[in-house]
Amino acid sequence: MNFSQFSVDKLGREVDTVFLALPHGVSMNYVPELLQIGIQVVDLSADYRLKDPSLYKRWYDLEHPHPDLLKQAVYGLPELHGEELSGAKLIASPGCNATATILALAPLMGWREGDRFISDVKVGSSEGGAKPSEGSHHPERQNAIRPYETEGHRHEAEAEQELSRLAGREVKVSIIPHAVSSIRGALASVHSWVSNVEEVEVWKRFAEFYRGKPFIRIVRRGFHPYPDPKYVIGSNYADLGFALDSRLGRLTTFGAIDNMMKGAAGQAVQAFNLSRGFQENEGLKIPPLRPG
Amino acid sequence: MNFSQFSVDKLGREVDTVFLALPHGVSMNYVPELLQIGIQVVDLSADYRLKDPSLYKRWYDLEHPHPDLLKQAVYGLPELHGEELSGAKLIASPGCNATATILALAPLMGWREGDRFISDVKVGSSEGGAKPSEGSHHPERQNAIRPYETEGHRHEAEAEQELSRLAGREVKVSIIPHAVSSIRGALASVHSWVSNVEEVEVWKRFAEFYRGKPFIRIVRRGFHPYPDPKYVIGSNYADLGFALDSRLGRLTTFGAIDNMMKGAAGQAVQAFNLSRGFQENEGLKIPPLRPG
Amino acid sequence: MNFSQFSVDKLGREVDTVFLALPHGVSMNYVPELLQIGIQVVDLSADYRLKDPSLYKRWYDLEHPHPDLLKQAVYGLPELHGEELSGAKLIASPGCNATATILALAPLMGWREGDRFISDVKVGSSEGGAKPSEGSHHPERQNAIRPYETEGHRHEAEAEQELSRLAGREVKVSIIPHAVSSIRGALASVHSWVSNVEEVEVWKRFAEFYRGKPFIRIVRRGFHPYPDPKYVIGSNYADLGFALDSRLGRLTTFGAIDNMMKGAAGQAVQAFNLSRGFQENEGLKIPPLRPG
Amino acid sequence: MNFSQFSVDKLGREVDTVFLALPHGVSMNYVPELLQIGIQVVDLSADYRLKDPSLYKRWYDLEHPHPDLLKQAVYGLPELHGEELSGAKLIASPGCNATATILALAPLMGWREGDRFISDVKVGSSEGGAKPSEGSHHPERQNAIRPYETEGHRHEAEAEQELSRLAGREVKVSIIPHAVSSIRGALASVHSWVSNVEEVEVWKRFAEFYRGKPFIRIVRRGFHPYPDPKYVIGSNYADLGFALDSRLGRLTTFGAIDNMMKGAAGQAVQAFNLSRGFQENEGLKIPPLRPG
Repeated sequence: MNFSQFSVDKLGREVDTVFLALPHGVSMNYVPELLQIGIQVVDLSADYRLKDPSLYKRWYDLEHPHPDLLKQAVYGLPELHGEELSGAKLIASPGCNATATILALAPLMGWREGDRFISDVKVGSSEGGAKPSEGSHHPERQNAIRPYETEGHRHEAEAEQELSRLAGREVKVSIIPHAVSSIRGALASVHSWVSNVEEVEVWKRFAEFYRGKPFIRIVRRGFHPYPDPKYVIGSNYADLGFALDSRLGRLTTFGAIDNMMKGAAGQAVQAFNLSRGFQENEGLKIPPLRPG
Repeated sequence: MNFSQFSVDKLGREVDTVFLALPHGVSMNYVPELLQIGIQVVDLSADYRLKDPSLYKRWYDLEHPHPDLLKQAVYGLPELHGEELSGAKLIASPGCNATATILALAPLMGWREGDRFISDVKVGSSEGGAKPSEGSHHPERQNAIRPYETEGHRHEAEAEQELSRLAGREVKVSIIPHAVSSIRGALASVHSWVSNVEEVEVWKRFAEFYRGKPFIRIVRRGFHPYPDPKYVIGSNYADLGFALDSRLGRLTTFGAIDNMMKGAAGQAVQAFNLSRGFQENEGLKIPPLRPG
Repeated sequence: MNFSQFSVDKLGREVDTVFLALPHGVSMNYVPELLQIGIQVVDLSADYRLKDPSLYKRWYDLEHPHPDLLKQAVYGLPELHGEELSGAKLIASPGCNATATILALAPLMGWREGDRFISDVKVGSSEGGAKPSEGSHHPERQNAIRPYETEGHRHEAEAEQELSRLAGREVKVSIIPHAVSSIRGALASVHSWVSNVEEVEVWKRFAEFYRGKPFIRIVRRGFHPYPDPKYVIGSNYADLGFALDSRLGRLTTFGAIDNMMKGAAGQAVQAFNLSRGFQENEGLKIPPLRPG
Repeated sequence: MNFSQFSVDKLGREVDTVFLALPHGVSMNYVPELLQIGIQVVDLSADYRLKDPSLYKRWYDLEHPHPDLLKQAVYGLPELHGEELSGAKLIASPGCNATATILALAPLMGWREGDRFISDVKVGSSEGGAKPSEGSHHPERQNAIRPYETEGHRHEAEAEQELSRLAGREVKVSIIPHAVSSIRGALASVHSWVSNVEEVEVWKRFAEFYRGKPFIRIVRRGFHPYPDPKYVIGSNYADLGFALDSRLGRLTTFGAIDNMMKGAAGQAVQAFNLSRGFQENEGLKIPPLRPG
């Protein structure tokens, strides 16, 4: 492949940045040459998300051909890596279920006990991609409440990497997605057992942790007191919240996103903005569709 | 109120049985007189589900006026109380989320470690009842993935009663429902942490526990390897299954029902059949709607 | 192909009847031999629906290989061909959009002016069949209000044949289907211009025309005064009704069916019942799913 | 009521324009005083849409209290009244079903035979407004294909006014809406009988009629060759197209809009922009949600 094709666009303008939306295992091979000819890469695949090369063998059954570049790559979750993103040449944009899970859990890291979590995710049909299949056939897909990839969901690897880093110790998270009837939207309900936690503390912790983050909204009280992806559809917002069952000590933290925006293209743009010193919400001033 | 009105129907035929579909706290008062005039009662409310009268104070904020009748009532889950139902005069038909949760958990009781569980339930809009509200208004309800009653869900009381009885020790379960876009259907994904469990053992345990139960289908392997309420809609089936994340030891057992059938009217008829010695599936030979 | 395979089923029992659900142009070739070895055929394809062989050339671009059998075949719409079905050896089961259109229009034939009609049909996704495609991919199909086959819809041929026969003169109907978000259900809204017609006359005409037909329900007045396929889902009912815009003289007659039942399998069984002298509703005593 | 409250907003800034979203019959009374104190009014109700005062009696059963203002009001459909809107002080923003119907029919006016039309409209649930009702209750509304207001739909009055004006003779249109499962979107399929019309002429006519109109897209050929509201959701676009059944001479023209945008708020902003000399798409550069 001749990568110089990427250096000018169809109108002959010089290209500075490429957003790669290729399958896992394919981006891997394009990235080095793009970087070499001076092009910034925002990679939407998983190929540069993990820091430890051995994890690619374990989770993706691939020998990573460029382990050195893994160190250079910045995990493109702007709420956690805002500073590192500044000037980044290689941005590894996070997976959708990982985004919802990490955002819902991050404030708990380094704060409270708990080193394993269950992220029960509910997702719309667009998470399945653009290719028709038996499972996406409308008469089969509509009205489904269908668990899938119930063991070894690959987004666990990146979620554990990011959460362990924040916690300063090994944290484990088991992600179990369920396909539901919407087109867009993902809600992670992340469950854990806690003791001696008060609601007000959790609220305070979330508010402090995400202070000043333009795409985070903490949802609490009101007509719908918990995050629901319905209210972020079309936008780059992540709505976060929690529910504490104090009788039994079940803490559930919620992350609601539009999987096509904060879970994919929107977040990639947000990270790109930070990498270049643009306003974080440049090109992302789209309000949620309401009702939608 | 003159209860003798119940003793003959509109065509003047003698009435043997009344199915009561009244709000909680209302059935309570009608039941004793109905029993007294010799009428069997299948009560779809929660009013006679709990054995311990003090639990009504705690969960329903009510002083139960007829604590003596609680002993006489049979909890109308035929898979657990088949024999007791024979000849029962007062049947307390279970709640929908409790049914899905109990059926998914029952085989684990008295078998393995684990005394607290998280039941993350996904439900269709018909669970909200027949009365319109802001939350059920179509533009608000469609596409929702909305957590609700996240703390102190009342079905926990009956689920814990039944599961503790089976386990022979105190078992706790935290139920957290989420409204999703379907009209009918409830899926309980019941999570717990286990160790040293093999998939095949769980399968064997489920198969043995429910052997010969006509409305239980164990779902495993095949195109959709996990239960999905979509495939029971319109029928009285409960599809059960499980997923073991062996890396982390997360065991999820699933219970999928049509909340209007196995979660309500269908189960009431099933229990009634057993109480009278009819075929268990009499009046319930309705196949699931496919595709539906 | 060895057709004797059809003469016994898998359990070795003699087969009397075969329901053929094959693509158009395929059934065509199987039917003659099946009849020859004494097997009754209920054909769900279009292959024996039309009486005039030249119409196969025009509408299906096929030379019909067995034009003689077309005379023998009975169009399997029991409300119009009840008597002929008795003893029928070859039943050509109607198309779904044709069924909804014909049932909505039949009472007007031979009664009032009008010889051309527009049948604006709204259909669920199951009408598209079981095979996934780009058009049936859930993210593309859900929320669609999508016109298709807007010119020369093949069900026009059978609808015109049946309606012209009833009217005793040439009647034309233009069918234009629209894919909407349901899985099941088809509503034909059949429009025409009339003058000097009173609502009560239309009502009387419908009631008389379908008197005693067990699967026809005339819908008028009440909470929902017009037919809606939602209320027949899962059943073999056809709900019929009408709306007269007396200011302009627009008469719309409605036919609402479950396309999988009255529009396909259910109607085939209904016709079969009549052919054998069984109760018309044998095997079809399934109530509509409510709410569904 | 003290109308001077309208002259400054909550931050004390002078108000130039008020967008009124009040029920029919209420706006009526507020408008005159607002105009008198120099405030421009964009009225989203029907109160100033009709030119002939007697039509208010007939269609809304109201004596219009300010018939003189009807002359001054500009019907806020920018594609037809772009020039008049410039400087308009009172803009009467069109109804949603009227918008879809008029846009689909306007190019035929003054061009071809035809003076009565049937507009068979399919609409999402948000057309019913924000107030919950039995008809909007999710278990009742989802999966519905429900005709309503089948006679005397009030948008006929404004559609006939606008179309007759364009045609230079009296034109009649019968609008019959059907509630389908989407939240947003309205598709008008407007049927009429024609003769001697070629597809290419219709296409040319549409293209010429709407040349340079930024929110009109003529849909023809391609994967989906007809307008579908799904592809305008969230945007102010109106997708227009047509289908000619040349065998029978049925011409159907289509108008697809998002009823909340081009059918309501978006169109009001578009008209306002023109009234003030702003770019027509100012504040309306929102792309359709895809997939949505």
